[in-house]
Amino acid sequence: MARWHEVAEALRGAITAGIYQPGAKIPKEDELQEEFDTSRTTIRRAVAQLTAEGLLTPVRRGGTKVREQPERQSLALDTAVYRDELGYYFSKTVQHLRALQPPTVTQEPCPPDVLALLGLQAGDHVIIRDRVMGNPETGRVEQLATSYLPADLPAGTVLAQADTGPGGIYDRMENELGWGLLEWEGIITARPATAEEGDLLSLAPGVPVLCVTRSTIATAGAAEGRVVEVNVTRRDASRFEVRYPISRA
Amino acid sequence: MARWHEVAEALRGAITAGIYQPGAKIPKEDELQEEFDTSRTTIRRAVAQLTAEGLLTPVRRGGTKVREQPERQSLALDTAVYRDELGYYFSKTVQHLRALQPPTVTQEPCPPDVLALLGLQAGDHVIIRDRVMGNPETGRVEQLATSYLPADLPAGTVLAQADTGPGGIYDRMENELGWGLLEWEGIITARPATAEEGDLLSLAPGVPVLCVTRSTIATAGAAEGRVVEVNVTRRDASRFEVRYPISRA
Repeated sequence: MARWHEVAEALRGAITAGIYQPGAKIPKEDELQEEFDTSRTTIRRAVAQLTAEGLLTPVRRGGTKVREQPERQSLALDTAVYRDELGYYFSKTVQHLRALQPPTVTQEPCPPDVLALLGLQAGDHVIIRDRVMGNPETGRVEQLATSYLPADLPAGTVLAQADTGPGGIYDRMENELGWGLLEWEGIITARPATAEEGDLLSLAPGVPVLCVTRSTIATAGAAEGRVVEVNVTRRDASRFEVRYPISRA
Repeated sequence: MARWHEVAEALRGAITAGIYQPGAKIPKEDELQEEFDTSRTTIRRAVAQLTAEGLLTPVRRGGTKVREQPERQSLALDTAVYRDELGYYFSKTVQHLRALQPPTVTQEPCPPDVLALLGLQAGDHVIIRDRVMGNPETGRVEQLATSYLPADLPAGTVLAQADTGPGGIYDRMENELGWGLLEWEGIITARPATAEEGDLLSLAPGVPVLCVTRSTIATAGAAEGRVVEVNVTRRDASRFEVRYPISRA
């Protein structure tokens, strides 16, 4: 085991044992250097590792403290789609969230992680509808939601416009374009945050985003059988989790 | 926007547009320095960011290439518990996985992220049962599974032993200790990988672990109403995802 790995193990053990308490500073670099009889580089690498793991966090005016583990907000796993006066929604837990900034609509090459879901090739264009969502009372950003539509589909339709009217794009797809009834599939995964996601969601260093992705499938009309939209929702993985009941088969 | 942030955006855009293809090297540091008319430090910070995002990866003999996005293995979300000749299991998708190394059983202070689930205080001890699981044919490690039991519960029972016999700890809890029928709840979230998890799962730099956690609740006997076990399963978030169907309410 590399020396920095051993130092990280020892510090992790001390945090777990409660020797260094949440919110308290750990010893300074030169004190740790002396304690472990090792180089500053080794100490820094060990501290960087535990910071990436979410156990430590830098202090504004210098030093490092034990991170207070936030309590995660539980999202009930919703395997149903609902409809209210605003349109379709997919989770009662976050139904109260609203767009905190005007949504943006752009046309761009499809990002690598969405290509396969939409059945597109690298370089193919998509319409991207971006929403920064949060609690309208506190103004805190809680989730980033981005819709991707293959660019050939919305061309010349209301789907390419910023305001798609009451009920949103799903109502338009079902009622005006005749692509419904729509069907959906959910996917939960995680990935490292981009710098922009880190800024918008105020993520601590190294914290990944928890992604809930929905694919929307048309069952009729010109788009029959195609995935007509992919919606990727990102949340702070240190603050959110998805809970679900388990029953005996 | 900081200069390195702009450089990262530009490189991300070039990757998305297919100018730099998956598997191909991006230009050398001094070439990028010239192209963006900026310092080596700025280029390094931008490249480090895109590496953490999973878009770039270092090349063994020097340089940096565009990471080939692995196709994720889909786990069907199982909200049911099954029983076969080996004992209880919770996902048909990974039923074929087996322990690749002898499981370990230790007693240690409870890690911070499990404390609240077990209703314990910092410094309280838990019995930790650790399993490194994978495909027995390829030997590849696919998941790390760790069970945590509050140390007061297994004391003096078969639960504290390495081999708990046919059907495992859940059979013992239900049939010998009279704590059943057991109930379970599932939680899906993600966090940065520890160095040890990174080694065991061969994670690319910056890739988080996708965690599926199960809490086991006793409904009878001495442990009635308590969470008697928490099982945390970690997988490579760049290789796994959880899929679930969505239906109209």
